[in-house]
Amino acid sequence: MIDSLTNGVKNQEEYAIAKSITVLEDESNDLSVSLRKEIYKTNSQTYVLGITGSPGAGKSTLISSLVNHLDNQMKIGIISIDPSNKYSGGALLGDRIRMSNLFTKKNIFIRSMSNRGIFGGLNKSIFDVVQLFSFAKYDLVIVETIGVGQNEIDISEIADTVLVISAPESGDSIQIIKAGLMEIADIYVINKADLSGSDKMEFLLKDNIQTNTKNNWTPRIIKIQANSGKNVDGLLELTLEHKDFLTQNNQLFSRRKLLLQKNIRESVIKKVTNNYIDPKIQSKEFKDSIKNVTCGKISFDETVNNLVHEIEKDIKNEN
Amino acid sequence: MIDSLTNGVKNQEEYAIAKSITVLEDESNDLSVSLRKEIYKTNSQTYVLGITGSPGAGKSTLISSLVNHLDNQMKIGIISIDPSNKYSGGALLGDRIRMSNLFTKKNIFIRSMSNRGIFGGLNKSIFDVVQLFSFAKYDLVIVETIGVGQNEIDISEIADTVLVISAPESGDSIQIIKAGLMEIADIYVINKADLSGSDKMEFLLKDNIQTNTKNNWTPRIIKIQANSGKNVDGLLELTLEHKDFLTQNNQLFSRRKLLLQKNIRESVIKKVTNNYIDPKIQSKEFKDSIKNVTCGKISFDETVNNLVHEIEKDIKNEN
Repeated sequence: MIDSLTNGVKNQEEYAIAKSITVLEDESNDLSVSLRKEIYKTNSQTYVLGITGSPGAGKSTLISSLVNHLDNQMKIGIISIDPSNKYSGGALLGDRIRMSNLFTKKNIFIRSMSNRGIFGGLNKSIFDVVQLFSFAKYDLVIVETIGVGQNEIDISEIADTVLVISAPESGDSIQIIKAGLMEIADIYVINKADLSGSDKMEFLLKDNIQTNTKNNWTPRIIKIQANSGKNVDGLLELTLEHKDFLTQNNQLFSRRKLLLQKNIRESVIKKVTNNYIDPKIQSKEFKDSIKNVTCGKISFDETVNNLVHEIEKDIKNEN
Repeated sequence: MIDSLTNGVKNQEEYAIAKSITVLEDESNDLSVSLRKEIYKTNSQTYVLGITGSPGAGKSTLISSLVNHLDNQMKIGIISIDPSNKYSGGALLGDRIRMSNLFTKKNIFIRSMSNRGIFGGLNKSIFDVVQLFSFAKYDLVIVETIGVGQNEIDISEIADTVLVISAPESGDSIQIIKAGLMEIADIYVINKADLSGSDKMEFLLKDNIQTNTKNNWTPRIIKIQANSGKNVDGLLELTLEHKDFLTQNNQLFSRRKLLLQKNIRESVIKKVTNNYIDPKIQSKEFKDSIKNVTCGKISFDETVNNLVHEIEKDIKNEN
């Protein structure tokens, strides 16, 4: 089973990739464990392009346009992170409608993934999915999210190059800066450049752009029209420039190592929480004790410390 | 020190509240521990109104307008959650500019809090700050955030009533639904109701609204003009209606208890991570071992399991 799956992925078969993502999304699954074991055995690193911006800024249109400007032979994976639907738990497929022209292309793989609300956190399997595309030796993965910081794991941690896209209509100066988008952009894309506010927006952004003190990259600004494709080639050039910058500074490799380290950390936290913390929190004994906090019998921090001690005791008493 | 602080908070002194929030933001601080011990000793529950929506939808204008419609004697706390600025770590104060008319009001306390990026997670001290206002017997706390899911701890978990605000210009049908805002709204506010798209937006929202299966509340839709104050009184009526609904169903109390439980859980996870997990992850030994994953010597999950075992061993060997 696992061999036919990994062979399919290696052969870049769409069905095998789709099936693998489904498997990876359920981390506790045995097959998932075996699959992860295989896909991390590779030194190849697919380039990851992150695209983020408010609803309506034109992310999906930009992706369509970018793909149309790229070599038809290039293997491209597109992952759209949807906010979770709390009631149904499913991902909404709006952008599938927008990007429908891409579905017929043989070299393009498109998938929506949902993040899973609070306690599940972001669908942290995005780490594994990016790794899957590296294992499959895809040329490019595009990860699309709404806005900044919507996920526990930020797009700027997963993507090598982050495009932040906005349109002149979508908000005024304070709001754009406030949305926190300035800090994560490697390239700032002003879409709908034909609209009247685009010059003002460019001026404002230029005024607020800061060189990233960690790697000395100064974010670039470019005006495009995603729907007509105007200046999308210029955007691609800037993207390559950023990629070259990272390569020359040996940052691609160190970023991936850091990402793997974070991924392992998150998995350890999750495992410890599942094994030791949640059984305590869900116990009747603990639930009953909460009223002692509100009536002042025991303090908040004492309660926390007691739980930690109990967990330590549980572990000590294990065989 | 702690007595003068808590007395000041009880007397609703602005300085004491401001100082307390600063103290609570640094959880590890000794004073913070003492303060938390005091503020959880209360059964009073300040009503929490959450306001969320994309940048530019008019959140700050709505808050100004709401406050102007409320009783001048009512004590109101306003907490604006800003995305963290990764480089400076500080919160941006854009909305302070917008809400400047409120700063001069004696009954209004305004504060920006930043969330702290990935590993720090959301500024989880928001739980404690809401509790602080309960302890101070404030009448209302308004918590404002950008969008949905930007924080690990969702606005719908903190607020008793969630207003989701949007404006006709800010995005089309698919995008609004995709932003995940439909699921958390108790009341959906269409701002800038004079703009041409507002009827279309209302129609679309009505079509997509679903009764919350957990508590049987059907979200309401209202059109307003926040800048002129038009229909803001109607919005206040709807908000009171939702509050009455929660009170009648005894949900206010159970929600707070659940919130406290979640807060304790997060603190336990944080403590266990700080004490046991992060020292392992940051060790040279672990960092060196990462290359064994990429070269296929050891699998991802084996690495995770090994770390969990090592942590268990560390705890067992403790005195």
